[in-house]
Amino acid sequence: MIGRKLVTRLASDGGVGELLLHDVIESRAPRAAFPVRTLVGDLSAPGEAEKLVALRPQVIFHLAAIVSGEAEADFEKGYRVNLDGTRRLFEAIRKAGDGYKPRVVFTSSIAVFGAPFPEAIGDEFFSAPLTSYGTQKAIDELLLADYSRRGFFDGIGLRLPTICVRPGKPNRAASGFFSGIIREPLAGEETVLPVPKSVRHWFASPRAAIGFLLHAAQIDTAALGARRSLSMPGISATVGEQIEALRKVGGEKAVRLIREQPDATIMRIVEGWPRNFDARRAAGLGFRADASFEEIVRIHIEDELRT
Amino acid sequence: MIGRKLVTRLASDGGVGELLLHDVIESRAPRAAFPVRTLVGDLSAPGEAEKLVALRPQVIFHLAAIVSGEAEADFEKGYRVNLDGTRRLFEAIRKAGDGYKPRVVFTSSIAVFGAPFPEAIGDEFFSAPLTSYGTQKAIDELLLADYSRRGFFDGIGLRLPTICVRPGKPNRAASGFFSGIIREPLAGEETVLPVPKSVRHWFASPRAAIGFLLHAAQIDTAALGARRSLSMPGISATVGEQIEALRKVGGEKAVRLIREQPDATIMRIVEGWPRNFDARRAAGLGFRADASFEEIVRIHIEDELRT
Repeated sequence: MIGRKLVTRLASDGGVGELLLHDVIESRAPRAAFPVRTLVGDLSAPGEAEKLVALRPQVIFHLAAIVSGEAEADFEKGYRVNLDGTRRLFEAIRKAGDGYKPRVVFTSSIAVFGAPFPEAIGDEFFSAPLTSYGTQKAIDELLLADYSRRGFFDGIGLRLPTICVRPGKPNRAASGFFSGIIREPLAGEETVLPVPKSVRHWFASPRAAIGFLLHAAQIDTAALGARRSLSMPGISATVGEQIEALRKVGGEKAVRLIREQPDATIMRIVEGWPRNFDARRAAGLGFRADASFEEIVRIHIEDELRT
Repeated sequence: MIGRKLVTRLASDGGVGELLLHDVIESRAPRAAFPVRTLVGDLSAPGEAEKLVALRPQVIFHLAAIVSGEAEADFEKGYRVNLDGTRRLFEAIRKAGDGYKPRVVFTSSIAVFGAPFPEAIGDEFFSAPLTSYGTQKAIDELLLADYSRRGFFDGIGLRLPTICVRPGKPNRAASGFFSGIIREPLAGEETVLPVPKSVRHWFASPRAAIGFLLHAAQIDTAALGARRSLSMPGISATVGEQIEALRKVGGEKAVRLIREQPDATIMRIVEGWPRNFDARRAAGLGFRADASFEEIVRIHIEDELRT
C-alpha cells in the first residue's frame, strides 16, 4: 500500500529520471511523465539483487516485505525474505565496486521495540523485539548502519508508526481495527472494536508516511552520524480519542456503527505494542507528523473518499 | 584466552559429563577427571555446526571469534565467522527437531554500544555499534533472543567488560595498554602508556569473566524474560586509578616502569569506547564483579605470577 502510494506521488511530483518498480508480483505502473519499468522477481533469490543493482538506481526505497504475522507463522520464510533478501541487496551494492553509492531508504518498524516500554520511547531506547519480524527489522537496521559507516551506500532507516487510516478492505491483522473503526463507519458500514477505549497507540496517515520517505530520500545524511535509523514522529492517541475525532468529522451516526466486542487474544497482542514515542531526532531532522488524529481522519476522506 | 581459562576451571571444578572443545586450531585438552574431546573445524563452513550439534551438548559456550581489529580490516571474514558462523550454529540446533534444547552461553561485547554514551550505560541503552565487530555481536544478540523466544534453545548473552589483566605477551590491540601498564611493571618490564591518566574504562578480571560464564550456564533463564543479553558488572576505573592500584600492590618501583608516550591514534579509538555501566540487571541476577581495581591486580598476581 505504501509502495503504491509512493509511486503515485512520485509520478505526480515529477523530477524523477526513471522509475524501476521491483516486486514478487507485477507492479502496476503509474501514468508518469518519465519512463517506468516494472520488474518481477524474488529479492531473496541468488542473483536477483545484482540484476537490480546493475541498473544503478540512485535512490532505492526498500519496503521489505513479509509482514509480522506471516514472519511469525513461517520462521524460515521471514528470515529468508526480511533478513537474507535485505542483506543480498546490501551485498550487491557493496560489490558493485565502481564508486556506486546510492541512497537507500529502508522502512523499518516500531516492532524493533518490545514491552515493557517507558511512557514514551526515546531515541536511545533499545531494540528488544518480541517477534521474528521485529528481530529481522532490527538486524536490517544494524546492517544498514554498518554498510553506511563503511561507505558502501548512504542509508537511512525509518520506523514508521502504524499507518492509519489504511485504505481498502478490512484485513485480519491484529492491528486492523485501528483503521477499521474509522474507515468502515465513514463508509456507512458497521465495525467491531475488540479492545477497551483506553488502549493507546502510535499513528501516522499514509500521506505523512509518504512524506517521510520522500524527505528521507533528500535529507543530508551527515546529520545522522552513525545512527542511521530513526523513529518517525506520529500521533499518540487512545481508541477513545480516535472515536472522538471520528465524531467531530463524521458525526454521531458514524460513531454508532462501532460495536464493542472485546477479544482477549487481540488485547493480549496489542498490550505488547508501543503506545507513544518521543521522536525528537526525526523532528529535528525535519520529518513532520500529522497535526492531530482529527487530521488523520480528514486525510483519509480527502485522499480516499473523494476520488 | 577466556576459552582456555574456562576449560581449566571446568577441569578443576569437575561435575561435567564430557567436554567437547571445538576451534579452528587444535585445542589443548586439559587434564580432567572426565572425558575431553577436541575437534578442529570452521564453524562457518557448511555442515560443521551440524557435526557438533549431532553430539547433543547440553551446554554450549560460544566464544566467537574474529576480533574487532580483524573484523574491521576484513569485512567479509568478520561477517562470515561472527555472523554466519553463529547463525549456522543456531540453525543447526533449531533443525535438530527432537526436543533438543541446550543452554547457549554467548559472549557478546560492550562493542555493541557506540558513542556518544550516557555517563553510565544502563540496561536499556540502545545498540549503535561503531565497528563491524560490534554490529555482528549485536545481530547475534538479536538472533539469540529470537531463537530463545521461539524455544529452539535456551540462550543467554554476556557483554563482557574489557578483560584486565590479560595474561601473556603485549599485543597490538588498541586496548592492549590497559593490561600492559599493570602486567609489564609487575614483571619488571618497561611499558608505554599512550593515553592521558584521565581516560576511564570498564574492566573485569579473567577470573570474574569465567565466573560470569559458569553462572550463565546454571542460572534460571526465566528471570531474563525476552531480554536475553546482559551487560556484565565490572569496575569502572581511570588509568590514574589503575596506576594507583598498581602502586599499592607493586610499589613505586613498578609505577616507575610506566612511560607516558601519547599516541593520538590510540586516543581517538579509545574515546569511542564505553567508560562506565549501570549493570543493574546482571547484578540482580547474581553476576558478581571484582571488588575493586586493586583486587583485579591481586588476581593477576595470584592466578598468573604464582604458578
